Amino acid sequence: MAYNLLKGKKGIIFGALNEQSIAWKVAEHAVEEGAEIVLTNTAVSIRIGTIGNLAEKCHTVVIPADATSVEDLETLVDKAMEHFGGKFDFVLHSIGMSPNVRKGRAYYDLDYGFVEKTLDISAVSFHKLLQVLHRKDAINDWGSIVALTYIAAQRTFAGYSDMADAKALLESIARSFGAVYGASHHVRINTVSQSPTMTTAGTGIAGMTDMFDFADKMSPLGNATADDCANYIITLFSDLTRKVTMQNLYHDGGYSKMGLSADVLRTYIAGKEK
Amino acid sequence: MAYNLLKGKKGIIFGALNEQSIAWKVAEHAVEEGAEIVLTNTAVSIRIGTIGNLAEKCHTVVIPADATSVEDLETLVDKAMEHFGGKFDFVLHSIGMSPNVRKGRAYYDLDYGFVEKTLDISAVSFHKLLQVLHRKDAINDWGSIVALTYIAAQRTFAGYSDMADAKALLESIARSFGAVYGASHHVRINTVSQSPTMTTAGTGIAGMTDMFDFADKMSPLGNATADDCANYIITLFSDLTRKVTMQNLYHDGGYSKMGLSADVLRTYIAGKEK
Amino acid sequence: MAYNLLKGKKGIIFGALNEQSIAWKVAEHAVEEGAEIVLTNTAVSIRIGTIGNLAEKCHTVVIPADATSVEDLETLVDKAMEHFGGKFDFVLHSIGMSPNVRKGRAYYDLDYGFVEKTLDISAVSFHKLLQVLHRKDAINDWGSIVALTYIAAQRTFAGYSDMADAKALLESIARSFGAVYGASHHVRINTVSQSPTMTTAGTGIAGMTDMFDFADKMSPLGNATADDCANYIITLFSDLTRKVTMQNLYHDGGYSKMGLSADVLRTYIAGKEK
Amino acid sequence: MAYNLLKGKKGIIFGALNEQSIAWKVAEHAVEEGAEIVLTNTAVSIRIGTIGNLAEKCHTVVIPADATSVEDLETLVDKAMEHFGGKFDFVLHSIGMSPNVRKGRAYYDLDYGFVEKTLDISAVSFHKLLQVLHRKDAINDWGSIVALTYIAAQRTFAGYSDMADAKALLESIARSFGAVYGASHHVRINTVSQSPTMTTAGTGIAGMTDMFDFADKMSPLGNATADDCANYIITLFSDLTRKVTMQNLYHDGGYSKMGLSADVLRTYIAGKEK
Repeated sequence: MAYNLLKGKKGIIFGALNEQSIAWKVAEHAVEEGAEIVLTNTAVSIRIGTIGNLAEKCHTVVIPADATSVEDLETLVDKAMEHFGGKFDFVLHSIGMSPNVRKGRAYYDLDYGFVEKTLDISAVSFHKLLQVLHRKDAINDWGSIVALTYIAAQRTFAGYSDMADAKALLESIARSFGAVYGASHHVRINTVSQSPTMTTAGTGIAGMTDMFDFADKMSPLGNATADDCANYIITLFSDLTRKVTMQNLYHDGGYSKMGLSADVLRTYIAGKEK
Repeated sequence: MAYNLLKGKKGIIFGALNEQSIAWKVAEHAVEEGAEIVLTNTAVSIRIGTIGNLAEKCHTVVIPADATSVEDLETLVDKAMEHFGGKFDFVLHSIGMSPNVRKGRAYYDLDYGFVEKTLDISAVSFHKLLQVLHRKDAINDWGSIVALTYIAAQRTFAGYSDMADAKALLESIARSFGAVYGASHHVRINTVSQSPTMTTAGTGIAGMTDMFDFADKMSPLGNATADDCANYIITLFSDLTRKVTMQNLYHDGGYSKMGLSADVLRTYIAGKEK
Repeated sequence: MAYNLLKGKKGIIFGALNEQSIAWKVAEHAVEEGAEIVLTNTAVSIRIGTIGNLAEKCHTVVIPADATSVEDLETLVDKAMEHFGGKFDFVLHSIGMSPNVRKGRAYYDLDYGFVEKTLDISAVSFHKLLQVLHRKDAINDWGSIVALTYIAAQRTFAGYSDMADAKALLESIARSFGAVYGASHHVRINTVSQSPTMTTAGTGIAGMTDMFDFADKMSPLGNATADDCANYIITLFSDLTRKVTMQNLYHDGGYSKMGLSADVLRTYIAGKEK
Repeated sequence: MAYNLLKGKKGIIFGALNEQSIAWKVAEHAVEEGAEIVLTNTAVSIRIGTIGNLAEKCHTVVIPADATSVEDLETLVDKAMEHFGGKFDFVLHSIGMSPNVRKGRAYYDLDYGFVEKTLDISAVSFHKLLQVLHRKDAINDWGSIVALTYIAAQRTFAGYSDMADAKALLESIARSFGAVYGASHHVRINTVSQSPTMTTAGTGIAGMTDMFDFADKMSPLGNATADDCANYIITLFSDLTRKVTMQNLYHDGGYSKMGLSADVLRTYIAGKEK
């Protein structure tokens, strides 16, 4: 069901790799809701994923860009404005990667070259994007920018490693730039803190299946899916949420406000007795 | 502009007094978005306010109820289900009153009979409402319940007195019952922490005009209005936010995440030099 | 080992029932650290517990008081000032009780007479105490007041019921009165959010043993004991923490900042496989 | 007045520049409380400051180290262990610097080479320090590590720029490593979020005097001084706070929990009328 919530709106979606990607779902829903979009990802992700199919489905183009490169971001924004015939309204940042996690480095044994990469790719890239958008005055008044994050930014999850720190940095950048961009152009910036999601990125984390199940049983509404997340982000791009900014918004079936559910406790007790 | 976001949905709106009320705006927007509603307020508020006009505009009825009375709430829910021909989908709780604030009692000189009233009217009433809804199984699966609150529940504002404590209690009730109602019926419960708003209730607080201005200058997007708030609450009632629950959602132009804006600092400095 | 951290200081300790009580430990440690104290509890608790032994050990008296009675609190404060020969420096509020929890009422089936009692005993009693202290100007400048709380005020734990809401109210009262008492007399007010603790009160909660174990395995340092808690509270009563106020301080071995520990996940997985 | 709270304890203090420094005060208080310490700072800071005088006063040595260099940190820890004759008990990280702030770059016009430096110096340095300590098993069981931070990590202050983001990253690192170091060696890691303080670093921030005054008037107890902060940190190094970990502890006279004080509002109103 579509409501035309984004009729007349235009935006860039970062981070769609394949059908599992949250960004993929956001792109689909945005178009269903009447938006025009431009897709972007790194050259590597474009090659290994299937974003071309998405572009076709969404009647649009893929503009490759490495979000850690200011130059690439400038080209992307220029091309998007050309494509749209002017300013646009929304952006989704769905980018995160930790070479330390990939290589299985323990948190007490991080490689600092990798840390720099984790922070640059997963967090500073968001500032670079915002700075380019701001400098080029690319976003319409009352536009909306969303970045995806995870609750590990607030609480420690064994195995999430330096991604947790990168997400804390990302959320701070959203607040800091939200103050600036809100005051100058009424542009709002929020982060969505999503349930663990069975994307290609998510399943790369060790023990993901079990953490997924733990979160699912802890959450009164169960984990939010990629589809649910897309629905929610559509509301954040719409004109109905114009005064929400600088927030970290939990989209997680209630997980973040749970201490202990009856379900989880039951399984835990069973595990002890074993 | 309407999107049919609430097409086919039904709900009860508590707390519309007059055109300034947030609940009034929510009622209007809900109907514009395709919902059927029932209005309710206390007998006194119905008499001193103009809710009859709203009912007419919304093609519906006003069912009087004192939200501190379980009996009244039961009657209300019965009548609403009769009116709707079955279960319904959303509820707005916009109720708050402190006799201590009204009588100008300082926070170090509270009357405890009044405190009991403040807590009962402004917070426990929400539990009573939820318990009646739950017992009567009145809400459809994936229904949505919202209560209005204020940031004084987290930080102290001179003059907000025991209303601050009542709001903290209200927010806790939303979380606690959200866990129960989510697990049993997929019903979500959230609080919206709104900017200071120039309603009849708001303007009753001493120094409200100045606090309003302070918040407005602190917030990168300015204060959210009652109309903005209604827009936001519509998204929370819609099917697009099904996995958001147990949250306290700031709808405040960024106020809650600001430490100090350049605007406020400038005025503050001018005040010091005076 | 004692440091004379409270040399010359005087205070009232609420809530010691028996040797398991956190308040009991605080009383012992305070005296070891050079403080003079007065003990208080309800007449019933005095009868069923062993506070008389504690009074003997601490060379002091027990003054009975029902903390929900302003009159009792006034008598208590008068007698304490008489005992001390003037103002005093610290107070511990360790009081909490829910008839709903005791009677095993589910959170969706609360008795509202009981709710009123839960709130009055566990939260409003703190305001009454503070208001009496403030009115009688009973606390020396830079005095320190602490109330015990639990993380259920922020996140929902199955079974904690209306105690969770009462604790949220208690924490708000600490903030609200902290602003008043700080500005007028430099008196600080904080809450300590303690690990689940094997006290008589704690073990009354259904499933406490398992929740205790869950928290212990989740916390990098393990659960904090009553003794640990007493140590911490001594620092909050001392002159070394004079500028800490209006805070909710987690004393929980890191529990509050954990998402998921390797230990808990392991046991959870074992439980699933069973 | 001293209590021998740190008798027999040993630790390293980073970041003392001159008598205004919080680290300077911590060093003095730690020694007064019976600790042995080693001082460290960068070669430049040692030259431009007066840390030599502090070392003399504290009967100890200064070991130069650039906290962004793992090699320097390794040498420092080796030398400290040699100096102490073995493991030690506490560490203070009081390090922060933003070239963007120094050069007056607006937040929407950051230099990304500078951002990398801000993050490396102010946040990643803390991970490097912790990783070196952990790898060399340099800290005794139940040791305590503290890093200084500022509330800009949670709320945006005009002018604090990328330092805010660095502090958010620092606080996340404290949590993440606290989980690891707590579980493996019972070492606790916390951050202290201190009032604006009139140190050499603090006064380098534009508008610091006015922000200082604003915070002072907002805080019920007034701003916490460097001396107050040293007192507080001593309690965190002591054995009385063994179960406090992964926390961000506000030491700010109540500022963080204030929305609006009567004092600030009065001055603000005066400024508007001007």
